[in-house]
Amino acid sequence: MSAAGDGAWPHVTLVLGGARSGKSRHAEALVREAGAAPWTYVATAEAWDEEMRTRIAHHRAERAVTGEGGWITIDSPLDLAGALRSAAAESPVLVDCLTLWLTNLMLGERDVSAALEAFFDALSMRKAPVVLVANEVGLGIVPENALARAFRDAAGRLNQRIAARAGRVLFIVAGLPVVVK
Amino acid sequence: MSAAGDGAWPHVTLVLGGARSGKSRHAEALVREAGAAPWTYVATAEAWDEEMRTRIAHHRAERAVTGEGGWITIDSPLDLAGALRSAAAESPVLVDCLTLWLTNLMLGERDVSAALEAFFDALSMRKAPVVLVANEVGLGIVPENALARAFRDAAGRLNQRIAARAGRVLFIVAGLPVVVK
Amino acid sequence: MSAAGDGAWPHVTLVLGGARSGKSRHAEALVREAGAAPWTYVATAEAWDEEMRTRIAHHRAERAVTGEGGWITIDSPLDLAGALRSAAAESPVLVDCLTLWLTNLMLGERDVSAALEAFFDALSMRKAPVVLVANEVGLGIVPENALARAFRDAAGRLNQRIAARAGRVLFIVAGLPVVVK
Repeated sequence: MSAAGDGAWPHVTLVLGGARSGKSRHAEALVREAGAAPWTYVATAEAWDEEMRTRIAHHRAERAVTGEGGWITIDSPLDLAGALRSAAAESPVLVDCLTLWLTNLMLGERDVSAALEAFFDALSMRKAPVVLVANEVGLGIVPENALARAFRDAAGRLNQRIAARAGRVLFIVAGLPVVVK
Repeated sequence: MSAAGDGAWPHVTLVLGGARSGKSRHAEALVREAGAAPWTYVATAEAWDEEMRTRIAHHRAERAVTGEGGWITIDSPLDLAGALRSAAAESPVLVDCLTLWLTNLMLGERDVSAALEAFFDALSMRKAPVVLVANEVGLGIVPENALARAFRDAAGRLNQRIAARAGRVLFIVAGLPVVVK
Repeated sequence: MSAAGDGAWPHVTLVLGGARSGKSRHAEALVREAGAAPWTYVATAEAWDEEMRTRIAHHRAERAVTGEGGWITIDSPLDLAGALRSAAAESPVLVDCLTLWLTNLMLGERDVSAALEAFFDALSMRKAPVVLVANEVGLGIVPENALARAFRDAAGRLNQRIAARAGRVLFIVAGLPVVVK
C-alpha cells in the first residue's frame, strides 16, 4: 500500500455508464462546470483499428464543439499517473476512460497492480476536481470468452475501488444521471 | 431539422430497461393510468422466426389479460410516424418497442435518419400521453460482432435523443421503476 | 399455487447487480447488520471447472475475513427450500445467488416451476431476515445463443417475481446501492 493510503477523494467524481449512454458528454459538462478553462482532457483511447480511429475522431469533434476550444488534450493510453502529474495544478481534469486504460494495460501485459497504485497516488495528490469516466460492463449475460470474463472482473473491481473513495458517483442512463453517491 | 424543432415533449414517457426487466408490463400500466380506454398499442415486433412468434403471442396474451380488452393494436414494424398519426387524437398510446423498430429499419436498409425525423415530428404533434418502451443494451461486454456494435451505438443514441426531450424517463429493474427524470 | 400464496415478504431483501458489482459483499454486510451471529450463508455455486473453483475459494476467503468467523455455510446448488428449512429459525440468512441456482436447475434438467414454488413456500415460512442475491443479466446486447436467451428470460422473470413481494430491492452499482424499493 502506498503513502496515499485509502482516504477519501472528495474532489473526484466517477461517471459510470454503458456504451453510448452519454457518459462522456455528461462528464465533459461536469468538468466545464467545475472550474475555469483551460480544462485538461486525458484520453486513454488507442487507435487499434479503423473503427477505433473513427470513434476517437468523433469524440474529438464533439469536444471541440461543446468545449469552445478550452481543452488541453493529453494522450495517455498507459501512464495515467504521469498524465495527472503533468496537468496544471488548478485545471479541472477529465479522464476518459478508465476501462479503456485497463484494456490497454492488460493487452500490453503491463503490471496492472503497480499501475493502479501509481494512479491512485497521483489522484490523491491533486486538489482540483477530477472526473473519471468508466464503463459498466457486468450487466449482460456471462461472456463465453475467458479473457472477456477476466477483463470484466478486473473492470468491475476497479470501479468498486474508485467508487468507495470518490466524493460523487453517477450512473448515466440515456444521457441522464442517476445519483448513486 | 424539421418544423418540430427540438422542443420538450411533456406528454412523453420513456421506459428503459433490459430484456425481461418487466418494462413492457410497467409501460402498459402507465398508459392505462394516463387516460380512459381505448388505449392504442403500437407494436413494432416482426415475427422473423418461431421464437419471435412465441414472444409476440406471449405479450399479446398478457395484454389481453391485464388490459381487459380496451386495447386497439396497430402493427407497425417500420412506419411509426404513420401509426402515431392514425391513432385517435385523445387515445393514450404505447409504442413497444423503439429498439425493435430501429432493428427493423437497419435490417431493412431503410433511411434511418429520415424515419427518425418523421417519428419525432409525429410525436411532437400529439397532445395525449405517449409511453415509449426501449431497450438499454449497452451495459454488457463489448460485442465481438461489428454489426452488433453499430446497432448498440444507434440504439444508445436514439435513447439519449428521446430522453433529452421526454417529460419523464424511467429505468426498470426487476419490474420496478427507478425515476431518472 | 401453494398455501403461501403471493403475499408480501417484508423480511426479504433482494440485492441485484451485474458481475463484479460488489453485490455479494454488500449483501453480506446487510445480513451482519440484520441480526446477531451466527449468520447462515446458503451457497448455490457448484464447482464445474477450475475457474469456478477459484471464484468460490475467493468468495469464501473474503467472507472469512469480513465475517469474523460468524458464518455457517450450507452448500445447496439445487435444494434451496431444504436449505432455508434447515437454517436456525432466528438466524439471518444470505442466499448467494439465485441466478446460479437457476442455472443449476436448468442445466440439471430439473422441474424449475416446482423448485420455485417450494422455495417461495420456504421463504414465506421464515420470519428472520433473508437477503437474496441475484444477477441482472438482461442489459447487454441480445445473445446469439438460444439457450442463453432462454436463460436470460427465466432469470429476469424470477427477479421480477421476487422483487414484487420483497420488502426491499437494491440495485448495486460499483459496490454502492441504488434503492429501487
